[in-house]
Amino acid sequence: MKFIDLDKTVSYTGLLELAGKKIDLKTLLTPERVEKCSVPAGGGLAYNWAAKWVDENVLEALEKLSGEMELIAKYRALLSGEVMNTGEGRMVLHHLLRGQLEKDVIHQGKNIGEFYRKELARFAAFADKVRSGEIVPAPGKRYTAVCQIGIGGSDLGPRALALALENWAAVEGKKTLRAEFISNVDPDDASRLASLLPLSETLFILVSKSGTTQETLTNELFIKDKLARAGLDPAKHMAAVTSETSPLANNPGYLDSFYFDDFIGGRYSSSSGVGGVILSLAFGSDVFKEFLAGAHEADKLALEPSIVKNAALLDALIGVWERNFLNLPYTAILPYSQALSRFPAHLQQLDMESNGKRVNRDGKPVAYSTGPVVFGEPGTNGQHSFYQLLHQGTDCVPLQFVGFLESQRGDDISVDGSGSQTKLKANLAAQITAFALGKEDANGNKHFPGGRPSSLLYGKRLTPQTLGALLAHFENKVMFQGFIWNVNSFDQEGVQLGKVLARKILKKQSSGSGDPVLDAYGSLLGI
Amino acid sequence: MKFIDLDKTVSYTGLLELAGKKIDLKTLLTPERVEKCSVPAGGGLAYNWAAKWVDENVLEALEKLSGEMELIAKYRALLSGEVMNTGEGRMVLHHLLRGQLEKDVIHQGKNIGEFYRKELARFAAFADKVRSGEIVPAPGKRYTAVCQIGIGGSDLGPRALALALENWAAVEGKKTLRAEFISNVDPDDASRLASLLPLSETLFILVSKSGTTQETLTNELFIKDKLARAGLDPAKHMAAVTSETSPLANNPGYLDSFYFDDFIGGRYSSSSGVGGVILSLAFGSDVFKEFLAGAHEADKLALEPSIVKNAALLDALIGVWERNFLNLPYTAILPYSQALSRFPAHLQQLDMESNGKRVNRDGKPVAYSTGPVVFGEPGTNGQHSFYQLLHQGTDCVPLQFVGFLESQRGDDISVDGSGSQTKLKANLAAQITAFALGKEDANGNKHFPGGRPSSLLYGKRLTPQTLGALLAHFENKVMFQGFIWNVNSFDQEGVQLGKVLARKILKKQSSGSGDPVLDAYGSLLGI
Repeated sequence: MKFIDLDKTVSYTGLLELAGKKIDLKTLLTPERVEKCSVPAGGGLAYNWAAKWVDENVLEALEKLSGEMELIAKYRALLSGEVMNTGEGRMVLHHLLRGQLEKDVIHQGKNIGEFYRKELARFAAFADKVRSGEIVPAPGKRYTAVCQIGIGGSDLGPRALALALENWAAVEGKKTLRAEFISNVDPDDASRLASLLPLSETLFILVSKSGTTQETLTNELFIKDKLARAGLDPAKHMAAVTSETSPLANNPGYLDSFYFDDFIGGRYSSSSGVGGVILSLAFGSDVFKEFLAGAHEADKLALEPSIVKNAALLDALIGVWERNFLNLPYTAILPYSQALSRFPAHLQQLDMESNGKRVNRDGKPVAYSTGPVVFGEPGTNGQHSFYQLLHQGTDCVPLQFVGFLESQRGDDISVDGSGSQTKLKANLAAQITAFALGKEDANGNKHFPGGRPSSLLYGKRLTPQTLGALLAHFENKVMFQGFIWNVNSFDQEGVQLGKVLARKILKKQSSGSGDPVLDAYGSLLGI
Repeated sequence: MKFIDLDKTVSYTGLLELAGKKIDLKTLLTPERVEKCSVPAGGGLAYNWAAKWVDENVLEALEKLSGEMELIAKYRALLSGEVMNTGEGRMVLHHLLRGQLEKDVIHQGKNIGEFYRKELARFAAFADKVRSGEIVPAPGKRYTAVCQIGIGGSDLGPRALALALENWAAVEGKKTLRAEFISNVDPDDASRLASLLPLSETLFILVSKSGTTQETLTNELFIKDKLARAGLDPAKHMAAVTSETSPLANNPGYLDSFYFDDFIGGRYSSSSGVGGVILSLAFGSDVFKEFLAGAHEADKLALEPSIVKNAALLDALIGVWERNFLNLPYTAILPYSQALSRFPAHLQQLDMESNGKRVNRDGKPVAYSTGPVVFGEPGTNGQHSFYQLLHQGTDCVPLQFVGFLESQRGDDISVDGSGSQTKLKANLAAQITAFALGKEDANGNKHFPGGRPSSLLYGKRLTPQTLGALLAHFENKVMFQGFIWNVNSFDQEGVQLGKVLARKILKKQSSGSGDPVLDAYGSLLGI
């Protein structure tokens, strides 16, 4: 298995040549193509790429690239426990949280899959006991709310997923515990939630892999202080999710502690206890297990070598085609589902933190663009907002739509002969068409150039399984793109410098930090 | 007053030449520069541009550009009621909602400023009566919640502002009514809120200027149906904000109706009843008036011709410098304040819908880039997410930081010798410094190239006045950029095509819409 930079591949030149030949999306996009260009993505989802700037020649060249770069072999190597996080010398095992696809991964004599399964069983049992009232905050009391204290990977994914399942759980008759999140070191964040939550009935979940995250530890003390002032025992109101080697591990100050390890990156940790504890508490451990099953199904599909049969791989390749050959520096994520309102923020982290790298896995600068800027808001809301630029701006932004045939709650109203869900879907179909085909108009103001490419991930209804597959689809897409760009998608050294400088200015407030520019900004801000 | 395309100005060539000379931000950025490069932005805010790629030569060239394009004269013309929304043949008068800066604007014999002041007085009185219990849903009952039904400009701004003031109001002893928002046509949005709100105590505010917005009218009927099923009189639970010529006007089905007009664009309408009714109901009309006063102060400062004394103008010019001469296609908005968590989504609309245009104000295609992609999330959260790409990605993303000396709630905890607010500010100072100066490291993975430009808007505390100035700063920045790009920043023709196609597919579900591609997508989605 060979790791080479994208511009050193044979396929690179071929793709550059193809990019020179303008593909006319308006001719390419036929109804037959819409019917033909769907591929299963797991959990009942399908990925449709009919409205992408990809013809048979491009497809063939991308297939060659996939073969030349041994993308499936690299995925299998990752699954088998090869050290793919080269910078930190770590394996990358988040897939194993959802099921096993290759041989056992043994590390220092420990079967990692067994460890993950054991922790899953432990926190599922814990959640069941909290939900059944076997574990209570005080005699005669019940936990009615859970609140995660975490940031970044310990926040954005779990938060997006909890929101995504709230409506589904409500109508499926699941008992639901209120789920909240504290993340920012801004004291207004923790103070607000402490004032809104019923503290005596709230179980806080402290999440930090290293056990040293400044924001999270500060917010833990903030909340413990509030609990103590309310006459409550913090140990009855806090559980921890951390690594076994962290200072938080085995601490009698928590109701219980659940573990994951260095082979699970923060932004890939929603399938571990980081997402699992709060989702199991809020909706039930069975719901979280369905979520894992959906993700596992997507992981399995991602093993398929033929690119038109592998949704995540194809999505990844098309993204690289757009980024490196069509030179489009951004991607918008546009879910037509209010339940996915915070999903784009999670994908923004997943993608930009994984592939926003300027050096390859050996630490050498690459000579091409890597990860794009990712942003998005739910439709139809975005239609009344930034879509103006997407339709008629000077630049082309590739789009990724997500939509569902049915709503989650099934509570609908017919107005002017159609239900709201049908209107939502009609808008989605209309937007894809409008972006691709445009509309000629002699009035420049009303002219739509069209030729703006999009893809569509669609499924029957947003269930836990579908949600798991949706998350895994994007995780796998990002992984394949990392392989293509030959970067390490699993570290985040770019977050370190800011941390170091923040500590510097906090430690030396009186005499200066030794960095005069930093001190000058500090004094603007009154520190 | 002359309207010309940017690339037809004399200044354009000079700026292009300057862009060829690489400015080294690491040398440019001194502590003295940090101290010197602040300019008041209203409401106690200041705009600091020390860490922007702008030296004396660039500044001089931008000053020339501002003069040549008569930016201040254009702003004054807009204030005076010149038709600046050329596509729709309308004046642009949102500044007048906050105070008068030029002569009276008379339209068809009507003094528009007087009309705005009268409506402000009407809805302020209405809100006061609801808050005091003079207007009640039923004898012995009180309104405890308000819920806006609107989308786009009737949603994103008011939502961001309500969130921004929630903490402030809580600690200032303001009586607060719970404020919620329904926007999406996704039925799960309205169904969820209908299930969560105390319907018998909720006042819904229906907001649509035209009175024809599909999503909003559908959601109105959705909610009216829920009210009726709960045995409540919808007329006691709904007020309207619309134009006087809309089908919603003077409708006895509403508790009361408040008006604005065609001279207030949706995304600029937060200062009208669109933002004013819900903010006055939620926090008090005095609070909303303070917000307007802050915005008015910023509007006044934006009249200053010297670019280094005019924060909005300078911000606009630097943005154009980055977009058209340094060729950077995006901007990130990074507020270090959890209260501003949805402010970037509003600015994304404001900016991308206003200046995402490919034709000039005469409808002719422009030969340069216009509005950038705008995105953002609050810090420190973003630091643990997409900042990786900002620090170490292959491309440079210009940054706009926002921060405050004090928290809103003043509820803080000291950990390791510093409070959370101090930690928040230390992180902000650290990030600006890290982006600008970077850090050499022989390990490519740990190397930070630096040279990544940012600005900082900062103030003492996020109060209603400061918030008003913050909003107006960005509105005025976007306006000046529109003048520079010679586009019409006040229409949004790009949203029309999707609407037309959505209606087409909804109207002809059985026999086909006449557009085979649209129908093919419709059938993927089960319509």
